[in-house]
Amino acid sequence: MTFAALWSSILEVGRAPSGGYRRFAWTREDHTLREWFAGEAASRGLSLTEDRAGNQWAWWGSPGRGDGVVLGSHLDSVPDGGAYDGPLGVVSSFAAVDQARADGFEPGKPVAIVNFGDEEGARFGVACAGSRIITGAMTAAQAAGLSDSDGVSMATARRKAGVLSDIGPDPETLSRIGCFVELHVEQGRALVFEDAVVGVGTSIWPHGRWRISVPGRANHAGTTALVDRDDALLKAAALVQAARSAAESNGCVATVGRLDVQPGGVNAIAEHVDVWLDARGASAASVTACVAQLEADAQALGATLHRMSWTDDTPFDPALATRLSQLLGAPMLSTGAGHDAGILANAGIPTAMLFVRNPTGVSHAPDEFASEEDCLAGVSALTRVLKDLAA
Amino acid sequence: MTFAALWSSILEVGRAPSGGYRRFAWTREDHTLREWFAGEAASRGLSLTEDRAGNQWAWWGSPGRGDGVVLGSHLDSVPDGGAYDGPLGVVSSFAAVDQARADGFEPGKPVAIVNFGDEEGARFGVACAGSRIITGAMTAAQAAGLSDSDGVSMATARRKAGVLSDIGPDPETLSRIGCFVELHVEQGRALVFEDAVVGVGTSIWPHGRWRISVPGRANHAGTTALVDRDDALLKAAALVQAARSAAESNGCVATVGRLDVQPGGVNAIAEHVDVWLDARGASAASVTACVAQLEADAQALGATLHRMSWTDDTPFDPALATRLSQLLGAPMLSTGAGHDAGILANAGIPTAMLFVRNPTGVSHAPDEFASEEDCLAGVSALTRVLKDLAA
Repeated sequence: MTFAALWSSILEVGRAPSGGYRRFAWTREDHTLREWFAGEAASRGLSLTEDRAGNQWAWWGSPGRGDGVVLGSHLDSVPDGGAYDGPLGVVSSFAAVDQARADGFEPGKPVAIVNFGDEEGARFGVACAGSRIITGAMTAAQAAGLSDSDGVSMATARRKAGVLSDIGPDPETLSRIGCFVELHVEQGRALVFEDAVVGVGTSIWPHGRWRISVPGRANHAGTTALVDRDDALLKAAALVQAARSAAESNGCVATVGRLDVQPGGVNAIAEHVDVWLDARGASAASVTACVAQLEADAQALGATLHRMSWTDDTPFDPALATRLSQLLGAPMLSTGAGHDAGILANAGIPTAMLFVRNPTGVSHAPDEFASEEDCLAGVSALTRVLKDLAA
Repeated sequence: MTFAALWSSILEVGRAPSGGYRRFAWTREDHTLREWFAGEAASRGLSLTEDRAGNQWAWWGSPGRGDGVVLGSHLDSVPDGGAYDGPLGVVSSFAAVDQARADGFEPGKPVAIVNFGDEEGARFGVACAGSRIITGAMTAAQAAGLSDSDGVSMATARRKAGVLSDIGPDPETLSRIGCFVELHVEQGRALVFEDAVVGVGTSIWPHGRWRISVPGRANHAGTTALVDRDDALLKAAALVQAARSAAESNGCVATVGRLDVQPGGVNAIAEHVDVWLDARGASAASVTACVAQLEADAQALGATLHRMSWTDDTPFDPALATRLSQLLGAPMLSTGAGHDAGILANAGIPTAMLFVRNPTGVSHAPDEFASEEDCLAGVSALTRVLKDLAA
């Protein structure tokens, strides 16, 4: 089956009026995609297994030997996300198996394609839930405590979707993986700048979240003289701009995407604003310097900065990355986004990523794009990787 | 009964942990205050009536003659509002009646004290609901369409609070009013600047609300290079600051107290922000110039400004204001806040306001304050007004 035919077979699932996708974990749309995955596995004679997080594995050869070469990615999306983030990796994996077989390749090791569940965390708030559960990075108790915005627990949602396993770590599944290679559309434009179609991931950037608590004094918007105001939102606006300046000065990225304004009335001067900061960069030092600069700006305004989370640099397997880069003649690059490959890397599994060029760099939005020509180059690269690793 | 005793008799009703008050229309706290109002009327031999909006009227003398001198204000509050906004006017009215009687005054006209319901609109979103309903400024159908954040309709809330009248215009009640004088704590510091304790209101400033629609492009906060971003929140932050600058340049006040950020995720670059602007000033020209300046700033950023509401200058009765100012030797001032007195003025009823000095100017917040000495001066002024108008 051609890449184009495979790609178009899921193109309408969960498509929103925006042109983007709404494919959230354990919904009808997700179920349709899981059925599609099972069907593609069956039509190729691959044996389907499901682990204790509900992730799907399609095995070419017996999975028992512990040196399995695993390809794949995920099929869920963020709200109004693009078509490529996740599905490109799964579709390309099936296409690579087809190409390898058409070339007469006989694997010397078991090969699998995986569909990780709930990678985006759009419904229950925790990204990479499927890989976190089987590696124990998220405990069963933590997973049990998650619910969506309608108050439906993850356990209930899984049960309604027909997934019957208990949630928990799955060392047996993990023991089958010799290495994992995740192909993904690039989020950003490093490959455009490098003039390359495919790149090899070396690491996931250090990244963190901070909450900046900005105080003010509540007062009446109609009657309070400008000189008598202590307007928390005016200070918050300065910090939104200061975050951008700090990122520019320190060579990293910083984003404020959420503000919580109290009391939030049109005729009320803001008494308090929480400014949420997301900051990431190629080096932990650059992110730390950026946040320190912003903290000084915040303190000058009487605001305080609280670190909510921090994840250091997550390197993929250096030997594997070097091997793939040399095999493909492809540049190596790091990424600012989290992936299941990062979760598995943290669990001690050799992992690597292949990125396919994205001309606009847009991701998590309907404009996310990769040309068909570049997608085919990605399939070709993944086929070469499969043959090399599973020889 | 002394002012201090009257004041302390409601001081704990609806007090929140913040030290401010939560006295919302047709709640238990509101009911307690309405029972208090009925009790104070009964203990003075005043006859209680309730109009078709549920506003309470305590009459000294027969209300039928059409030349009633009405004092009063409201007892409800904004969320975590201060103690004075509203209750100071009602308590001072009872104290003024007590003082006039103690002085042996016999009114030549009927006198009433009114407690307007739901002045702040904190629960159902429409300010001055009580006076709007009886004057027809809000229709019964509009009132029926209102519900609180729990989905409880105004009609249901009133019924639960034991108010049995149908909502609607009440020309009979209005016909009893010869004039209305509302005493209120000043919101702002004009009296501080004038070095006066009591002032006479001349008008309510022209005021309006605008929504500024700020576009951007959704993208991933971790992977999108700074130069590739079109961040709606960064532009919104510039407009929050531009609103302040425009107000400073044009001698009015402008406030952004609410921002709606889409999608509003910590790791999502904002695709769209609605910036809500409240602008008011002593002259319509100053507000118009301020908004025009901001509109130019918005257009330069690709944003568009939409007028959501506009209320021109609302003058109180000029002859009445002049009379009270001369009687009291008090300065005249305009105000940036809306009041039931403004709704009645728009309905053709002669109205006036007395303001009592507020040392900090703070309003709609726990720090709202007037000293006891100033409150007593307010009662004394209101007593003189009562004697003059009802002679």
